[in-house]
Amino acid sequence: MYFGSDNWAGAHPAIAQSLVTHAGGFAAAYGTSELDRKVERLFSEIFERDVAVFFVGTGTAANSLALTAADRPGGIAFCHREAHVAEDECGAPEYFMGGSRLYCVDGPLGRIDPANLEAAFARYEPASVHMGRPSAVTITQATEIGTIYEVDQIRQIAEITHARGLPLHMDGARFANAMVKLGVSPAEMTWKAGVDMLSFGATKNGCWCAEALVFFHPDKTADFPYMRKRAAQLFSKTRFVSAQLEAYFENGLWLDMAHNANAMAARLADAFRNAPATRLAWEPQANEVFPVMKADLAAKLKQAGVVFYDWPQPHGMAPLGDDEVLGRFVASFATTPDDVDAVARLLG
Amino acid sequence: MYFGSDNWAGAHPAIAQSLVTHAGGFAAAYGTSELDRKVERLFSEIFERDVAVFFVGTGTAANSLALTAADRPGGIAFCHREAHVAEDECGAPEYFMGGSRLYCVDGPLGRIDPANLEAAFARYEPASVHMGRPSAVTITQATEIGTIYEVDQIRQIAEITHARGLPLHMDGARFANAMVKLGVSPAEMTWKAGVDMLSFGATKNGCWCAEALVFFHPDKTADFPYMRKRAAQLFSKTRFVSAQLEAYFENGLWLDMAHNANAMAARLADAFRNAPATRLAWEPQANEVFPVMKADLAAKLKQAGVVFYDWPQPHGMAPLGDDEVLGRFVASFATTPDDVDAVARLLG
Amino acid sequence: MYFGSDNWAGAHPAIAQSLVTHAGGFAAAYGTSELDRKVERLFSEIFERDVAVFFVGTGTAANSLALTAADRPGGIAFCHREAHVAEDECGAPEYFMGGSRLYCVDGPLGRIDPANLEAAFARYEPASVHMGRPSAVTITQATEIGTIYEVDQIRQIAEITHARGLPLHMDGARFANAMVKLGVSPAEMTWKAGVDMLSFGATKNGCWCAEALVFFHPDKTADFPYMRKRAAQLFSKTRFVSAQLEAYFENGLWLDMAHNANAMAARLADAFRNAPATRLAWEPQANEVFPVMKADLAAKLKQAGVVFYDWPQPHGMAPLGDDEVLGRFVASFATTPDDVDAVARLLG
Amino acid sequence: MYFGSDNWAGAHPAIAQSLVTHAGGFAAAYGTSELDRKVERLFSEIFERDVAVFFVGTGTAANSLALTAADRPGGIAFCHREAHVAEDECGAPEYFMGGSRLYCVDGPLGRIDPANLEAAFARYEPASVHMGRPSAVTITQATEIGTIYEVDQIRQIAEITHARGLPLHMDGARFANAMVKLGVSPAEMTWKAGVDMLSFGATKNGCWCAEALVFFHPDKTADFPYMRKRAAQLFSKTRFVSAQLEAYFENGLWLDMAHNANAMAARLADAFRNAPATRLAWEPQANEVFPVMKADLAAKLKQAGVVFYDWPQPHGMAPLGDDEVLGRFVASFATTPDDVDAVARLLG
Repeated sequence: MYFGSDNWAGAHPAIAQSLVTHAGGFAAAYGTSELDRKVERLFSEIFERDVAVFFVGTGTAANSLALTAADRPGGIAFCHREAHVAEDECGAPEYFMGGSRLYCVDGPLGRIDPANLEAAFARYEPASVHMGRPSAVTITQATEIGTIYEVDQIRQIAEITHARGLPLHMDGARFANAMVKLGVSPAEMTWKAGVDMLSFGATKNGCWCAEALVFFHPDKTADFPYMRKRAAQLFSKTRFVSAQLEAYFENGLWLDMAHNANAMAARLADAFRNAPATRLAWEPQANEVFPVMKADLAAKLKQAGVVFYDWPQPHGMAPLGDDEVLGRFVASFATTPDDVDAVARLLG
Repeated sequence: MYFGSDNWAGAHPAIAQSLVTHAGGFAAAYGTSELDRKVERLFSEIFERDVAVFFVGTGTAANSLALTAADRPGGIAFCHREAHVAEDECGAPEYFMGGSRLYCVDGPLGRIDPANLEAAFARYEPASVHMGRPSAVTITQATEIGTIYEVDQIRQIAEITHARGLPLHMDGARFANAMVKLGVSPAEMTWKAGVDMLSFGATKNGCWCAEALVFFHPDKTADFPYMRKRAAQLFSKTRFVSAQLEAYFENGLWLDMAHNANAMAARLADAFRNAPATRLAWEPQANEVFPVMKADLAAKLKQAGVVFYDWPQPHGMAPLGDDEVLGRFVASFATTPDDVDAVARLLG
Repeated sequence: MYFGSDNWAGAHPAIAQSLVTHAGGFAAAYGTSELDRKVERLFSEIFERDVAVFFVGTGTAANSLALTAADRPGGIAFCHREAHVAEDECGAPEYFMGGSRLYCVDGPLGRIDPANLEAAFARYEPASVHMGRPSAVTITQATEIGTIYEVDQIRQIAEITHARGLPLHMDGARFANAMVKLGVSPAEMTWKAGVDMLSFGATKNGCWCAEALVFFHPDKTADFPYMRKRAAQLFSKTRFVSAQLEAYFENGLWLDMAHNANAMAARLADAFRNAPATRLAWEPQANEVFPVMKADLAAKLKQAGVVFYDWPQPHGMAPLGDDEVLGRFVASFATTPDDVDAVARLLG
Repeated sequence: MYFGSDNWAGAHPAIAQSLVTHAGGFAAAYGTSELDRKVERLFSEIFERDVAVFFVGTGTAANSLALTAADRPGGIAFCHREAHVAEDECGAPEYFMGGSRLYCVDGPLGRIDPANLEAAFARYEPASVHMGRPSAVTITQATEIGTIYEVDQIRQIAEITHARGLPLHMDGARFANAMVKLGVSPAEMTWKAGVDMLSFGATKNGCWCAEALVFFHPDKTADFPYMRKRAAQLFSKTRFVSAQLEAYFENGLWLDMAHNANAMAARLADAFRNAPATRLAWEPQANEVFPVMKADLAAKLKQAGVVFYDWPQPHGMAPLGDDEVLGRFVASFATTPDDVDAVARLLG
């Protein structure tokens, strides 16, 4: 009963098999093979627009390089206070930007509050050399606490961002989970709503290692190949990424996997909702469930072999009771109803 | 007839298959799974010593992080003038070190000349805050031009380096090719000869993507996990690397693959040696061959579909004739005698 | 009537004169002259302890290099949310640290609240490679809003900091103003209370350009000369700084100047306290006064030639009325009672 | 008899006096005072063109920030192998650029050889993401070994540089010394010959601390104020620099001081030329003299109180005899004929 994270799952058999299929023969290295080109075209088709796609090794790399691409001297990138870039990347964005900084904006349920974002921008107006200057905004979709920005909410953030001439980045480590929940197209959730750069994550959703940085304005990426290479993120045998993504997109596999993860999370949420001694800290919208449990129940679950993480309370959340803990349970493409029901039975 | 680089080959079937085998089930992420631990122990066995092993995404990352681990303010890392870190990594070492620099040392046949290294160190003695100060030495084994340091040559470089209290790093992008040529053990070619850090490359030798940074003094790596994470080089599903390496080491597969690559390079070298209008620029020692050809022969080869690269002349090499070009041909685990013989026939 | 900042004043005549006195003759450069050594010894006398002193060009440099000296990979330096390092240095600390970050802690009246600092540390316990790790704490004395840490408050912060094995830095851009207000010795306000590094600012208090970074543990500064030089902060003719500081310390000139600045601020505060349409946002403790004024009064002052800045409201301050503004008035060594009284008359 | 460096001299009395003159009164900080504006206009007059001028603290800062302003991801700045940026700044250029690198070009007598520069550029053509890409060229005038680029030589370097669309920077730490030697105007030695950025050094030529970065294309400096501030190089009381420079330019004081330094160097060169046991390593052209001496003569000079530095032999210089040393003697605005003659007498 593994709900530690979606990256505790391995790879979907079709994706692993694609690596076998493409293992033979010779192909140009460093992203220039025919298969690489084919997968790049797939991205443009899927997003209904010419896009520039760059594979990188980790979601952290995609996020950090996106913010670096948008950076300028004295730059400040705005993110939610509990964003992955701020909380879980050991300073990689700042390290890659070479000293520019993140500014954390609050907002309920893991989403940047537009009024707070406006207020944060206002602090930097008029421009002052002492304070530095905004460079970008980044949102996480789905958020770090398993909620989702509605398309209109994305658009609202984008308008505030674009009004300052700045780009909007989306950390899509759980892109597919959010998209299938909203029931919109990739284009609708991104550039049609004002997103300029996307960290497209496929690793958490059934790949071994497949992360891509997607630019919706390919004409602005002349410097980017150098940024990626000097950050040691240019793979030599890029077809090992392309092969995964080819299978990922084939016959809607990526959507099926995201649907399963979300459905298993919903099933698990029901279990917590109905159990006597637990409640949901907030409504899950993608593949993550955050229940509040009595501490002894949490201990009992762990003893029974249920893997999940204790989670720090988000800023602004009402304090827990003394004997309560907040847990995080993540479902993946590989989670089964049996996995969920086994947990449910333990909730009594 | 693909001799562009050893990274034009894909993955050995056994390695791709291992990724299928390990695709199912759940396992701890970020390098803490049982398989990860098992492969770490394999490294200690293979190197006959407790080592600390960190997987990263690219050889460039391994090299850059090794030099970063050894760096200090005002630091200067010494390398050969044609080293990969200096010529082919787009400044990644300097980028990761945050401003420290490389100092290029000359030497014939791709190897740092010990006397030149001594002289280079002497420039920085006594220490001066204006000049900066040495931080590390890095050698490439096999070198960028397909030659090899004998064990005694490594030891000599190590002694000069250690005399200054500095660590010696080995860029082992083609580690196995060098080792099987020398007929020594992993330990003999590394820590027993004075190497302190090793970029252990397996990608070029039949893996999809498997690079590891090996520290022979594990007690000095307390900071390293943070260095790797902030450089966006910590994979989540690390078992995708471990699975490759498990197969790589099994039954000596890695040695067999390196033997094949070297043998095919030797076979190709014979062809150039015996052909009327070509000669070897120097004797190949691993899996790379550098022939000097008449320009029209080179053109003919390319037209016939032989993939190889024109190569810039190393510093200090006698100038080519006006109608001559220097080529680089790289053999890999996947190169066959037929591939080589097809080239040989074209040499007339 | 110039209250824009204490750096709108020039230099005390005795300090300018000292630069004339020392202009002749030859002396070793880069901090090694006899005068440099003499002034270094003065610091050790003044602080009643062997200290290591490094001159730098700006307070920003002193702060940024102090945090760099304390940094480690994945490092996080803790400061008050309105600290100068966070608000007014254009990211210099992060730039110099090469990517490490600041974490802002709240607290009333410009001071870090110890409970908040404990809570901030607790977020990083146990250590996690994803979150990064604390590297230092920095406090500002006097604070950015003209308040002062009592010695016991410094000690409390130091204890929390040292309990994690971390160093405490003090940004002393207005060191003398705080010290004379507290009526304690330099030692009492620093290392005796647990301060490990001090940005000793003399520029704002009557020098032309004289900033020093003082380390109270000189044995830990072996790397620092390289950090300073690579940051382009090593002056060649260091005696131009030493000459200023020699005069600064002579006959307690520095204390007299700070006393004057504080007294003039107190006189101005009285004027605001007693004026009909103004109030003090909080009690000034050093040489800065923050009155809340009706907007039309502020406009009237400006029209009359009074130079001061509108100031953004600190976080947590009760909102101003619609027609109110917050002003900042700074007195300096050069401010006279006449300057103050001229403002007072305008307040009606 | 101090010939250690021109920065062993203090400040010209007129310059120190100007700091007294401007010490009183209040003025806007951070480069916005009337005096600052006046001195900026002086620069435009002197250079016969609208220029953008930024004061910084050290020549190292000016050089490093100029190269940073020209930098781009994967950037490589080309300099002479013995350039100050490469040999004497502890990696500050790389540190400020955040990882971009210097590429050293050889050339006789301290000057970049145009053919070598062409060859160096050719290594990076066509552009390759692995190799990085050129970002700028920097020359030193006068050079590190006291020689001078003729205006035509500057133009030649500029043409090669501009042909790649890159900017040319001049490190003018000894700008005035070179200019008065050539007998040309500031404009003729810079932008009229193709220089795009200039580190204008006044410290070595009689100021206390006055360095400026001059951009000849002011429209390209929008980002620069942020670059300077985040590098901690924005002084608060900028008038302390402006006051020095006002006096520096008044009545040609700067030219007089440079003339004196050069004349004293020439006088000293004559002494070495005529002495029995010494010879000039090369002809001095500005204010530095490099004699080759028998080791026992050098020792005798030092014992007699003559301050000068032993100097490492430039690359390509014919080896010294076993009992010979290379010395560097630098004259300054403050050097007198008596100082020189005292040395001459010791030469026998």
